[in-house]
Amino acid sequence: MKLRELGEDRLMADLVAGLKSRADVIAGPGDDCAVVAAPGEDRLLLLKTDCVVERVHFRPNDKPSAVGWKAMARTLSDFAAMSGVPQFALVTLVSPPDRAVRWTKELYRGLRQIADRFGVAIVGGETSSTDGPVVVSISALGSVERERWVSRKGGKPGDPLFVTGKLGGSIRKKHLNFIPRIEEARWLTKNFRIHAMMDVSDGLGADLPRLAKASAVDFEIDEQLLPRNRGSSIQEAINDGEDYELLFALAPNDSAALQKKWHKKFPRLLLTRIGRLDRLSTIHHHPFFHGFVHFT
Amino acid sequence: MKLRELGEDRLMADLVAGLKSRADVIAGPGDDCAVVAAPGEDRLLLLKTDCVVERVHFRPNDKPSAVGWKAMARTLSDFAAMSGVPQFALVTLVSPPDRAVRWTKELYRGLRQIADRFGVAIVGGETSSTDGPVVVSISALGSVERERWVSRKGGKPGDPLFVTGKLGGSIRKKHLNFIPRIEEARWLTKNFRIHAMMDVSDGLGADLPRLAKASAVDFEIDEQLLPRNRGSSIQEAINDGEDYELLFALAPNDSAALQKKWHKKFPRLLLTRIGRLDRLSTIHHHPFFHGFVHFT
Repeated sequence: MKLRELGEDRLMADLVAGLKSRADVIAGPGDDCAVVAAPGEDRLLLLKTDCVVERVHFRPNDKPSAVGWKAMARTLSDFAAMSGVPQFALVTLVSPPDRAVRWTKELYRGLRQIADRFGVAIVGGETSSTDGPVVVSISALGSVERERWVSRKGGKPGDPLFVTGKLGGSIRKKHLNFIPRIEEARWLTKNFRIHAMMDVSDGLGADLPRLAKASAVDFEIDEQLLPRNRGSSIQEAINDGEDYELLFALAPNDSAALQKKWHKKFPRLLLTRIGRLDRLSTIHHHPFFHGFVHFT
Repeated sequence: MKLRELGEDRLMADLVAGLKSRADVIAGPGDDCAVVAAPGEDRLLLLKTDCVVERVHFRPNDKPSAVGWKAMARTLSDFAAMSGVPQFALVTLVSPPDRAVRWTKELYRGLRQIADRFGVAIVGGETSSTDGPVVVSISALGSVERERWVSRKGGKPGDPLFVTGKLGGSIRKKHLNFIPRIEEARWLTKNFRIHAMMDVSDGLGADLPRLAKASAVDFEIDEQLLPRNRGSSIQEAINDGEDYELLFALAPNDSAALQKKWHKKFPRLLLTRIGRLDRLSTIHHHPFFHGFVHFT
């Protein structure tokens, strides 16, 4: 069956049927807005939206459940970047009317899987037809303790730079099934003085300069140290994008303890010191650093 | 200049340059998430997302500032529907890379105009390229006093039904420059017992049955009473859609006072009693009631 044969109300009823809720959800899908309880005033609210577009972020023949996973994971990864806890999500689905209902249900299955895994309630959705490619846009709301949120701005000259996992070649598979580093980010800010953090979505080559610029510092990287996925060159590890790993700068004195404790806590996830932040006046050459550029 | 020549970082820097902030915005555009203060625990949070798609919700030659206005207004209208106050918005722009930068800046000018008018801070944005039509998705976060939020569910048999403004023919102009009825909704819940409310976006013929269904009641309308825009037939007033007026049911005893006070408070906006809610067992025929159906 095609979407145009089902109609919007029945489609939405079908899609939201299997969704899990949370105790702080007062009104979920089906009304004009979703209504949720506010966290205590000791917490700050975090908001983020991101989208995936057919033929840009996924291929027409990719599994729709993986497309749903990716769409949600991209947004959740930004909560990890700030050491936040995502709680509620809204889904906007823009789809051609001749798309199979089954495709859409599988998309939602992927969305639900990752939402459930991270305790996120899907509290609303919107659909629209289009004569173009499918667009899935996810907005999420979460929170973080006032003293634990991390921006890109706090990096200081001399801070060691770390990256989780491995970089490069994500397009071969990982971009559709990656795990947002929420647990890792929460552990980091609980135990160490993280000065600046972000997730690597456009490639280290684009994102590290953003972190450095926001912190008003420069950076120095040993390219030989970059943790690379199998089959990826140094240049690919820097520029491929879609790694969704954490990149962070921390207090120099915490570096040794972090390296010691990380391995115990996350034995299956690499943590690599790739370089350090430096004063802005220092002249560095970053020949490979341009990363994924949108709109090309 | 085209978007592909400008690059994402410079585009975003340009777009956010003129944005107004709010005292409760802790980190706006430029970091992984936006960070805002939570309201007091006497308030509930409201979340909503909506989108406009080229050739579905606007025409390629419509003024981009009006497209921006409409995109934001649609989402804010859902806050009106619940008597909420919108506070923060995120903008997702999916655009072909050969779109003129000027078009995009004008789009943002429209977004800013309406955001400023309602005190909403645009705290983040995301962009993506596409080989299809432009999609603008707006997510917003707001709040409402615990005792003042109105859903679609509270309507009771015998409640008079009211609608603000006039219906029908919105496609001729109003769909691009309408005013979300936030002020009116706030006044209604402050002064009267509003049992159920929503905004009429898909046409009274689609939306009134949704309100009735959510309230587990039926409805009776005098079609001759429907307030129509000039040149619109009864059928168009019921089915055209994109009216963005408020539809609400209130306590019968409040009806006379409402009609008396409304005219003083909002002398330039019509308020019409169009019918009433009824018990579910009553058999009514609603021949024109189907409204705008998506995915066709």
